[in-house]
Amino acid sequence: MLERDSKPVHGDVLAAGRRIAPWVQRTPVLRSSSLDRMAGATLYFKCENLQRVGAFKFRGASNAVLSLDDPRAARGVVTQSSGNHGAALALAAKLRGIPCHVVVPRNAPAVKLASIRDFGASITQCEPNMAARNAACAELQARTGAELVHPFDDARVIAGQGTATLELFEQAGELDCVVAPVGGGGLLSGTALAAHGVDARIAIVGAEPEQARDAHDSLASGVRITDRVPETICDGLRGHLGVLAFDILREHRAAILLASEVAIAAAMRLVYERLKVVIEPSAAVPLAVVLGDPARFAGQRVGIVLSGGNVDLDALPWQAGAR
Amino acid sequence: MLERDSKPVHGDVLAAGRRIAPWVQRTPVLRSSSLDRMAGATLYFKCENLQRVGAFKFRGASNAVLSLDDPRAARGVVTQSSGNHGAALALAAKLRGIPCHVVVPRNAPAVKLASIRDFGASITQCEPNMAARNAACAELQARTGAELVHPFDDARVIAGQGTATLELFEQAGELDCVVAPVGGGGLLSGTALAAHGVDARIAIVGAEPEQARDAHDSLASGVRITDRVPETICDGLRGHLGVLAFDILREHRAAILLASEVAIAAAMRLVYERLKVVIEPSAAVPLAVVLGDPARFAGQRVGIVLSGGNVDLDALPWQAGAR
Repeated sequence: MLERDSKPVHGDVLAAGRRIAPWVQRTPVLRSSSLDRMAGATLYFKCENLQRVGAFKFRGASNAVLSLDDPRAARGVVTQSSGNHGAALALAAKLRGIPCHVVVPRNAPAVKLASIRDFGASITQCEPNMAARNAACAELQARTGAELVHPFDDARVIAGQGTATLELFEQAGELDCVVAPVGGGGLLSGTALAAHGVDARIAIVGAEPEQARDAHDSLASGVRITDRVPETICDGLRGHLGVLAFDILREHRAAILLASEVAIAAAMRLVYERLKVVIEPSAAVPLAVVLGDPARFAGQRVGIVLSGGNVDLDALPWQAGAR
Repeated sequence: MLERDSKPVHGDVLAAGRRIAPWVQRTPVLRSSSLDRMAGATLYFKCENLQRVGAFKFRGASNAVLSLDDPRAARGVVTQSSGNHGAALALAAKLRGIPCHVVVPRNAPAVKLASIRDFGASITQCEPNMAARNAACAELQARTGAELVHPFDDARVIAGQGTATLELFEQAGELDCVVAPVGGGGLLSGTALAAHGVDARIAIVGAEPEQARDAHDSLASGVRITDRVPETICDGLRGHLGVLAFDILREHRAAILLASEVAIAAAMRLVYERLKVVIEPSAAVPLAVVLGDPARFAGQRVGIVLSGGNVDLDALPWQAGAR
């Protein structure tokens, strides 16, 4: 059984794909000839914004929940997240019929808590800092025996996130490159494991906001940076690279490309306009980096993971007064 | 060969499906458990907003263009449309390598003309009234010998539009009811032909803005109404029912349900929020009528055609100052 702090391998992604198939959507891959022309490349957009809970996070959460044997599962799962992972774990736990506890900061928006609660998870509020979150999680684990499922620093979660790329290869055929957003690195490291088991020559590119460039600087310096407070419209990418992801991304020689906030907002609008799908800002960063460095991707077949679609429709970046 | 003013039958929809398969996207069908709960029904959303050119219109235009024998095709095609049909016909003509002429009113937005021109069609501007449009079309036909492909009052177009519903049945299985927007009636009459060839008991429901209720009143009175000037956010549904559609919808006992502008805007927002896809206002009318009459659809399996996604992202109905 894959444990939280094991180092996941390609076979774990394959196993995750089989395990979670009954629960997850096989999301479509979209194309756009006008975006291809703009990029000078052939782009395959994997629509994880159409995944259950509106984000790829449901893959990792499902794999973690389904990886537990019955006695461990019966004690439930616990996590800390006010975002997509919290809702994803809540739904996965509900589907297996086990308890789920989610620790959220006191200042989390009510609408995010509502979706976690709708899936039947119990919510514990804490002060909005990492120490308080960790303490609340540890207390819940100790009291209930629930299994911690970290949003990204968890081998089962990483293996689950990689399954999006397995599907992408089945749907799009051979690719030269896969570009995914990088925050905590769960998606990007899962992507690397999935891709390099198929073909070690595939380039793995992480797309990161310039204003949250800890993954870029961590990989460049060889030291994992964990002490920044990023300011970006990409609320899903404010976390720092996890321990497992840092190792995996170094091994797989992932490149990290950066995009400005303006470029991210413009790419987000292009996706709405040309692909006709709703994405959150984090999901626009891959297209932003591809359009920002045409020489790098010229003539290539490029997979892009549209990571999620949970966005405040009253504050789209191009709306008057949105920010 | 199916001619423009023939009366199309189910077999014509089947033939259209085979004919246009190499050109059209097999668009995905999306589900949402939260929308199902709201409706008290099981909803299958056929995503024609993800069709090429961003609308189902590409199906009918492709079928018309591919129905022509080589000598007729060589003389090109002509239509009048500043909307989705113009761009759809332009792309279909480009794919076959034949000339395309599109008559547009002088006041059409520049952005709409750009996409028609991008596909290589020649644009003829005319005064913004029906008489001037018809005259310009007739003059082009006489001068070039091009084949008129009407946006909806054309058997080949109607048969093509029906192919979306053929795919929907393959993807969703048996349905009790299919709901599609109704403007000129090309989509709805094609839907009726497609559905009733499979099972004559399937209910065909047209969804129309209250403020553009000519199809409703035409079918109720038995007299085709053509003299109104509707005011609705659904720019795709301002036309009047065509002659062919009027006959087909009466024969197939289509029901027309109405939705207010407020209900349409709310349904549109729900689609963005729950299905994570971008639709234009016209495409939201079916969900609006389903949510507006829960008793009628209770417990049913309902197909909904999301007809298109070409929308002004700076004027979404819920944005401040959008109207």
